[in-house]
Amino acid sequence: MITKDRTRDTKEADFGSKIGILGGGQLGRMLVLAAAEMGLKCHIYTPYSDSPALDVSPYRTIAPYDDEAELTRFARQCCVITYESENIPLDSLRILSRYTSICPGIDTLKITQDRLQEKEFIRDLGLPVLPFYPVDNEKDISHALTQTGLPAIIKTRRSGYDGKGQSIITNHDQISTAWNRIKQQPAILECFIPFSKEISLLSARGKDGSIRTYDLPENEHQEQILRRSRVPARISSNLNEKAEHIGRIIATALNYVGVIAIEMFVQESPEGEKLIVNEIAPRVHNSGHWTMEACSTSQFKQHIRAIMGWPLSDPKRHSDVVMENLIGTEVENWQNILTSPHSAVHIYGKTEVRPLRKMGHVNYLKPFSSG
Amino acid sequence: MITKDRTRDTKEADFGSKIGILGGGQLGRMLVLAAAEMGLKCHIYTPYSDSPALDVSPYRTIAPYDDEAELTRFARQCCVITYESENIPLDSLRILSRYTSICPGIDTLKITQDRLQEKEFIRDLGLPVLPFYPVDNEKDISHALTQTGLPAIIKTRRSGYDGKGQSIITNHDQISTAWNRIKQQPAILECFIPFSKEISLLSARGKDGSIRTYDLPENEHQEQILRRSRVPARISSNLNEKAEHIGRIIATALNYVGVIAIEMFVQESPEGEKLIVNEIAPRVHNSGHWTMEACSTSQFKQHIRAIMGWPLSDPKRHSDVVMENLIGTEVENWQNILTSPHSAVHIYGKTEVRPLRKMGHVNYLKPFSSG
Repeated sequence: MITKDRTRDTKEADFGSKIGILGGGQLGRMLVLAAAEMGLKCHIYTPYSDSPALDVSPYRTIAPYDDEAELTRFARQCCVITYESENIPLDSLRILSRYTSICPGIDTLKITQDRLQEKEFIRDLGLPVLPFYPVDNEKDISHALTQTGLPAIIKTRRSGYDGKGQSIITNHDQISTAWNRIKQQPAILECFIPFSKEISLLSARGKDGSIRTYDLPENEHQEQILRRSRVPARISSNLNEKAEHIGRIIATALNYVGVIAIEMFVQESPEGEKLIVNEIAPRVHNSGHWTMEACSTSQFKQHIRAIMGWPLSDPKRHSDVVMENLIGTEVENWQNILTSPHSAVHIYGKTEVRPLRKMGHVNYLKPFSSG
Repeated sequence: MITKDRTRDTKEADFGSKIGILGGGQLGRMLVLAAAEMGLKCHIYTPYSDSPALDVSPYRTIAPYDDEAELTRFARQCCVITYESENIPLDSLRILSRYTSICPGIDTLKITQDRLQEKEFIRDLGLPVLPFYPVDNEKDISHALTQTGLPAIIKTRRSGYDGKGQSIITNHDQISTAWNRIKQQPAILECFIPFSKEISLLSARGKDGSIRTYDLPENEHQEQILRRSRVPARISSNLNEKAEHIGRIIATALNYVGVIAIEMFVQESPEGEKLIVNEIAPRVHNSGHWTMEACSTSQFKQHIRAIMGWPLSDPKRHSDVVMENLIGTEVENWQNILTSPHSAVHIYGKTEVRPLRKMGHVNYLKPFSSG
């Protein structure tokens, strides 16, 4: 539902006082709530009039991302602009950046919007990635498969999330099918290697370059959607340090400001466990939702602190925690979940339940000691 | 600043889907945020266009409390209505109650709006209160003083908060001054007895009559405003049980639904520590703000659960905690507080800093064990 509703802040002259957020999904919504707890106002910019974030924000622009007049008006009301999705058009950000600052920066978004650029960026930093090959047609795929071997995975360069725009190739007959499944878009072909665990690193980097990293969650996917995150991850402290080191290199190289999520695979090898960087999300991340109850400062508040140039918080946990997504109709079970002790249910207020749609999440806490 | 701005939900036909909140101060604001975390929408009704809660609620009515047309329109959009202050006119609630349910109920508000009725109600339940006497003129005061002895304290029957409408009388010459200081309003005269500690009980009662009680905070006041609350309170477990028992009697007698706060004094006596009930607040309460970070379900979420008829949450803490109010210009120190580990700063977004005005609060957590 794309509409061009011109609802917005009634005080037109309220220049530069708000945090601008591009995107009105659950991440935008939780950013608004986090900012509000610290006394800050957000202004949501979204093309969709049924965006969940609009329910908590009287300050909003409902307009397409290519509406220069609306973008300009929006930017003038914001002291800083951030985004909840890496799929914002770069041209929109370029317009906004004439009037105010964008955090994380445009260069970061440019890299992370394009899976090929992102993989090259990580590899060029000397960090471990799976071998990958750009493919623009079936012939490219066929050729790349001689390098990767089988199985391999094809991923569109742009606009993929929750497994959308991906296809596994287990034999050469599937090349056409896979290519059509990803709608013949520019892509990369990647080795498909078994891994023992998937973790993600959630760090915040401040304007002063300081970095604070949350404990690593161990992630479990189902149908390519995050099912749950457990903290702490069952990995060695040595691997913990390695992951943190990787995060530091990436965030620093990007001159990053805000919360960054880096998905990594843990691969068993004869030399022990190895980390492989899979993907960078230049934003708050589903695998960080556990911080909402298990830390005094959630990833959302930490992101707001970072982009406001405020001191970052100590990211220590006070509890072990399992975060469980409520996907599709699972959300209808929330009343039962409410009765589980030390649980916190978050519902995103989406107007329609759809299969595989993230409708909410639950944090199950296990405090260190029950006192 | 009272204005009659007719800003409101654009969907006029959105009947009965929202939680209505009377009052747009920090308590209303935190209720909105808590409801939003659980996917619920609130509609704020406030006479003041600069109310902090309006920043987080696109659904609002800005109109006086005696505007019957606006009250009716508001009530029709709400599945339940609650309030953040006991100073809402009963007539407004009577109008609203024609269209939807009010939690806590009108009878509760009627009692707690009038200090005399409230004290009589507590006394008639057989619970310990300080001796009190209704006074309507100087002669009454003079006579009542022969019963209470000196010092005594005079408190207006209505509209008092944060020490407003109170005056201490230490000798008979002060009767006139005290009477004028409380603007010659109907009042009660109470014994002024030294107490060793002040605690408050925060309980939630569900629609099914179930009661959940948070651990007791020990409260410290300065200039009659809450300065800080510490949890746990330094009292015996025996006193804990007694307090909980008192809460249960009061909440049940009121057929209460929602979070209730009951302020009590701890008095040292030759027979040991004794509890005296001071005041009932039929709402979420400043001395419960520590629950926002030290429990998986804050008092605000618990209140929303109760009035929605949802199961109540386990109120267990995972941390010890000190809640400190940010009063007046203290709020300007928030950047320093941000750097304190395990602290969470809450700012209410009030447009103006005034002396003795509650601008925000901080929760300093001390997790049970640092893991």
